[in-house]
Amino acid sequence: MMKRPCTLILTALICALSPSCRRPDVREDFVTAPNAQQGRSYPMVNSEGRVRVRIYAPYAHSVKLDIDGRKYRLRREWNGNWSGESDPLYDGFHYYRLIVDGAVVPDPSCQYYYGDSRWGSGVDIPSPDQDIYEVKNVPHGQVRGTWYWSEKKQQMRHIFVYTPAEYDRNPDKRYPVLYLLPGGAETEYSWVRQGHLAEILDNLYAEGLARPFIVVMDNCVLQNPYEWEEDYNGILTGDLIPMVDSTFRTIPDGAHRAMAGLSYGGLQTKWSVFAHPELFSAVGSFSGGAYTVAEAESHPGFVENIKLVFVSFGDAEIENPTFGIDPGTDPRQDTEALREYGMNAHLYLAPHVHHTWHAWRRSLREFAQLLFRD
Amino acid sequence: MMKRPCTLILTALICALSPSCRRPDVREDFVTAPNAQQGRSYPMVNSEGRVRVRIYAPYAHSVKLDIDGRKYRLRREWNGNWSGESDPLYDGFHYYRLIVDGAVVPDPSCQYYYGDSRWGSGVDIPSPDQDIYEVKNVPHGQVRGTWYWSEKKQQMRHIFVYTPAEYDRNPDKRYPVLYLLPGGAETEYSWVRQGHLAEILDNLYAEGLARPFIVVMDNCVLQNPYEWEEDYNGILTGDLIPMVDSTFRTIPDGAHRAMAGLSYGGLQTKWSVFAHPELFSAVGSFSGGAYTVAEAESHPGFVENIKLVFVSFGDAEIENPTFGIDPGTDPRQDTEALREYGMNAHLYLAPHVHHTWHAWRRSLREFAQLLFRD
Repeated sequence: MMKRPCTLILTALICALSPSCRRPDVREDFVTAPNAQQGRSYPMVNSEGRVRVRIYAPYAHSVKLDIDGRKYRLRREWNGNWSGESDPLYDGFHYYRLIVDGAVVPDPSCQYYYGDSRWGSGVDIPSPDQDIYEVKNVPHGQVRGTWYWSEKKQQMRHIFVYTPAEYDRNPDKRYPVLYLLPGGAETEYSWVRQGHLAEILDNLYAEGLARPFIVVMDNCVLQNPYEWEEDYNGILTGDLIPMVDSTFRTIPDGAHRAMAGLSYGGLQTKWSVFAHPELFSAVGSFSGGAYTVAEAESHPGFVENIKLVFVSFGDAEIENPTFGIDPGTDPRQDTEALREYGMNAHLYLAPHVHHTWHAWRRSLREFAQLLFRD
Repeated sequence: MMKRPCTLILTALICALSPSCRRPDVREDFVTAPNAQQGRSYPMVNSEGRVRVRIYAPYAHSVKLDIDGRKYRLRREWNGNWSGESDPLYDGFHYYRLIVDGAVVPDPSCQYYYGDSRWGSGVDIPSPDQDIYEVKNVPHGQVRGTWYWSEKKQQMRHIFVYTPAEYDRNPDKRYPVLYLLPGGAETEYSWVRQGHLAEILDNLYAEGLARPFIVVMDNCVLQNPYEWEEDYNGILTGDLIPMVDSTFRTIPDGAHRAMAGLSYGGLQTKWSVFAHPELFSAVGSFSGGAYTVAEAESHPGFVENIKLVFVSFGDAEIENPTFGIDPGTDPRQDTEALREYGMNAHLYLAPHVHHTWHAWRRSLREFAQLLFRD
């Protein structure tokens, strides 16, 4: 049966108004991402792992979405909005930006995160286990922002310290401490915001799956090993650890102190723990490189003091290495060799993620369950 | 003497490259504003109170700065950057945005703040007393982000709680509490970020000018008096105050509990304290409206319980009223009348500011010095 003209016109009009007509290959089950600002509908994500953005730019000639190293042209709608979507992306968190007539700007609908050396937009592709950081009706810890004086640097430095929910209910109890670094080009805000550290640990403790500990998150600018040794290890041992041990109810010994970091922060952790193995009993490297037997042997005190070596990657990083996997090496083999050598070494591969924050959220959850089990 | 051609060309080139050639009326003593992102030069501010922004937008046809209700056209430079400056503005903090070919976006060089119902750019015009919130080498308190369950709303709510530096050093001491609201279209982040609450109180306590107290900062969406009475007062009295009194070392009585807010939050404070004067002993209204004798008399318990009424405005608000000053009324007269009536009422006018955050930072500093002086 032939459609009547008014039906055809109506269909054409709906097509012009609705993004779904434009790309038959895109699954139209988009929902607002949790990263949208209060009261905004965009950015959206769908079950294929695509991001859809929309921005009102009535006089622009070209608007693009720039995410995960690819740029996607947006389509102009009749009303001055531009919208479009990415290819399917890996699960988890992705920094992105919009490009309006050549101007690289944050998405005005999105919340902002520090990474890639700037505050800007970020979006979460849904994952089956995203409830690990859901805000649930369980006892909640505190993320405490504060300043400390660094004698070494002659400056005030800002940190966040997470204390578990039970910390304020047990005024006489003391706790182990994890010193946790963000990645390169990130800050002390990164684990709090896109890392959802507090919510991950709150949920884990509520499930009874880990021993509660304190977490110290510092702001570590990108530095080479020499500067790290000279500079950050001086801050860490001379200023930060003493301040934390005198301000919080810690158990102030190496057996109850761990250090970990992600990506470049995993490498920075190595530089600190190799230089001062007597201060720690556990290390974690999330997409930051494995530990080899040769490294362990060549740093006096490391094998004796470190009771847990935790190495993790996104599974997609193994196939398509970025940071922390040198050509010809395999973190699975390195970690297995370290275990055969006699160290308590663990490798964790986060499923269906590459070098992104969802790998590191999951790594924290896994690492925390192994920590301070004395 | 006539200039040589190469000198003329050089002068023209310098003029084309340097913004100073373009506007002889603008004083060229711009410095990077404290709101610039790490490593960025813009936004800048000068001693006249102008803001200068710059954005790279090579293919744009029009770029504007939108600040304080006015739009300023930026000038295209030879290299694809656009730059320009505002008229002189009042001291203190101003939300702003850029408009690139009609797209309203945050300035990618600037840090982001919540206000005007969105996360976006903001800039501080220097003021003579901006060191009230400078990060100094003094004992620092903590800004604690946490979640609490509201039985009333059946939801988890996020708050910030400030504890003074001495709080963790005196495990047996209990403290008074100030419940402090942001303005309409702002959130619990506003007092922490653009308000610099922690740094203001840290400095004040270090100077010995105030009695240390805890501050609770909640996220209060804009609501009318009826909803407030039904809704927020239920949260406040049923969920928030009990949670705070059981989690923190408070002195849990009305004599050691105060409430204050800015702009619409000042009005919301009125609705809470008029409904529950037995729970408080002090109120503050920063650019949120004065208290009249008629109001005080018509709310049973208010005159008996409230030992301090603090009202403040920016001095420029008196001449050019916005929120909180009804036509034909004068907060100076209202407050003087309340004082003559026998209440301990204070009026503070912050110099050279209108309805902006610098008025409220100063108001906090003044109010804190009068609070809990029993």
